[in-house]
Amino acid sequence: MRVTLPLEVRYAETDQMGVAHHAAYVVWMEAARVEFLKRVGSPYHELERSGVRLPVVELRVTYRAPASFGQVVQVSCEVQDVRSRAATFRYAVEAEGRRLAEGYTRHVCCDGQGRAIPLPEALRRLLEGASSADRSGPPGHQGELLYNRPSRPRTTGRGRW
Amino acid sequence: MRVTLPLEVRYAETDQMGVAHHAAYVVWMEAARVEFLKRVGSPYHELERSGVRLPVVELRVTYRAPASFGQVVQVSCEVQDVRSRAATFRYAVEAEGRRLAEGYTRHVCCDGQGRAIPLPEALRRLLEGASSADRSGPPGHQGELLYNRPSRPRTTGRGRW
Amino acid sequence: MRVTLPLEVRYAETDQMGVAHHAAYVVWMEAARVEFLKRVGSPYHELERSGVRLPVVELRVTYRAPASFGQVVQVSCEVQDVRSRAATFRYAVEAEGRRLAEGYTRHVCCDGQGRAIPLPEALRRLLEGASSADRSGPPGHQGELLYNRPSRPRTTGRGRW
Amino acid sequence: MRVTLPLEVRYAETDQMGVAHHAAYVVWMEAARVEFLKRVGSPYHELERSGVRLPVVELRVTYRAPASFGQVVQVSCEVQDVRSRAATFRYAVEAEGRRLAEGYTRHVCCDGQGRAIPLPEALRRLLEGASSADRSGPPGHQGELLYNRPSRPRTTGRGRW
Repeated sequence: MRVTLPLEVRYAETDQMGVAHHAAYVVWMEAARVEFLKRVGSPYHELERSGVRLPVVELRVTYRAPASFGQVVQVSCEVQDVRSRAATFRYAVEAEGRRLAEGYTRHVCCDGQGRAIPLPEALRRLLEGASSADRSGPPGHQGELLYNRPSRPRTTGRGRW
Repeated sequence: MRVTLPLEVRYAETDQMGVAHHAAYVVWMEAARVEFLKRVGSPYHELERSGVRLPVVELRVTYRAPASFGQVVQVSCEVQDVRSRAATFRYAVEAEGRRLAEGYTRHVCCDGQGRAIPLPEALRRLLEGASSADRSGPPGHQGELLYNRPSRPRTTGRGRW
Repeated sequence: MRVTLPLEVRYAETDQMGVAHHAAYVVWMEAARVEFLKRVGSPYHELERSGVRLPVVELRVTYRAPASFGQVVQVSCEVQDVRSRAATFRYAVEAEGRRLAEGYTRHVCCDGQGRAIPLPEALRRLLEGASSADRSGPPGHQGELLYNRPSRPRTTGRGRW
Repeated sequence: MRVTLPLEVRYAETDQMGVAHHAAYVVWMEAARVEFLKRVGSPYHELERSGVRLPVVELRVTYRAPASFGQVVQVSCEVQDVRSRAATFRYAVEAEGRRLAEGYTRHVCCDGQGRAIPLPEALRRLLEGASSADRSGPPGHQGELLYNRPSRPRTTGRGRW
């Protein structure tokens, strides 16, 4: 299962290079992960209320092309791996069918004091179910993305990095 | 050569987990890289003025322990690799001699239109010089860090992830 | 004319008080202003491309109740005042029909060098038109808000400030 | 009493207008307030640990000139007003002796559930003492600022707004 969240690049997310700052993608990936957990039936705010935390212990992003202010980016999230105390999500950021970035985050399940604990049984099953349901290709594969909102035509001649 | 920048964790950088948000580290690493470039004699704002950009094309962070509001973290930066059109920096985030995180960023040298260009000769030499001058151990190695400011005693019992 | 933008509070926007950080509202207000300009037919990225800037010269926010992670806030924007070289927008942030915050921003029209210039004639007319079309009550007045997305039920007992 | 905190403008704090984004000032003012509370002997993290919160209920910023990446801004904070359940701080942001912005924040004292409570007696006295000790002129008055770090020469011809 793959969840795609459309996000419009905010002015505050740009930097003086004239494109979205690279740290913004980390926030977008988190927003897509939050949406993913909501859709599989285990909203993160409910996990937190039950005493569970999923802090990021590893983060990787590869940037392929810049995102511009006002552009709508499609941020997709899916489960890559589930362990007894950890889970890995992977992401793709696309716009107009073009890959802008991809990455993953690894999370360790913790209690309120920051001690590693096993993933709650229900969460682990939901993630495993969501994982096995979709094994066909990378996240953000163009044909499967749900473009909920049209993004504005891009006329700038920005190159590919 | 390794440059260490002390930064006090801002309240705005925390999240409701009660510690610094993982995206804040990406901003800290950038601040340490900016300090590094300044100290080797090639401030980034001067590079930009001369038409050169160093966008991040790859980012990786491993988080080992949380950083708390008010805590002073030591963010060190050094050159890991220099190529004709790219450079990689690596980082460590420490507090009170304890490793909180480490990571690297890879940058491709671009002109103002986002097209890859060779690193300016002067910059390449500065980075290579800074690179060869220090080959002894990982960044943030405790004994070499410059603790410019005392950090406040930490009494919270937060575990290690 | 009043434009309302629904935004889901991001985890990265919370702080360790457990609610959205007060600086996040400033970013939300900007996002609503960007949406407003788009809907009246003068998208900000087109204004910028034509050499016009609208930097904020004054900002005021009054916070009435906190916003929580995952909550959908409705951020409304409308024109409050249009002058030859300046414009003021006002905002309301609501959730579930409850006012969380309100504020305004004043902007001076500038060229690319930061010098004050008159508002472009077309923009001034659009803003004046949007201004005169709606004089009935404060922004975010409950009955007029467009709730595009349902927000999740809030069960926390957070008080009013 | 007035406390001045030097902060170097981060790249991530700029936007595509080429200067620090207006929301960054709100974060800087908070950092100066945190420094103020530390210096008067009541660090905010200790207040929080004792169950006290000081959420912002009102915020105002006036922007006079832009701040640029790499520039060191001096952010000063002082007490403007102390009430039984509220306090107001005022701020100035300067660089090279030039006023860039000023503003204030008003805070209501709350418990952990967000209910208004009286300021702790010790805090109220500290703030009143800090308030009465300095009544001579606006914050950031040039002659009184402590320039801890030299800021880089500014050569851009950016105008005043």
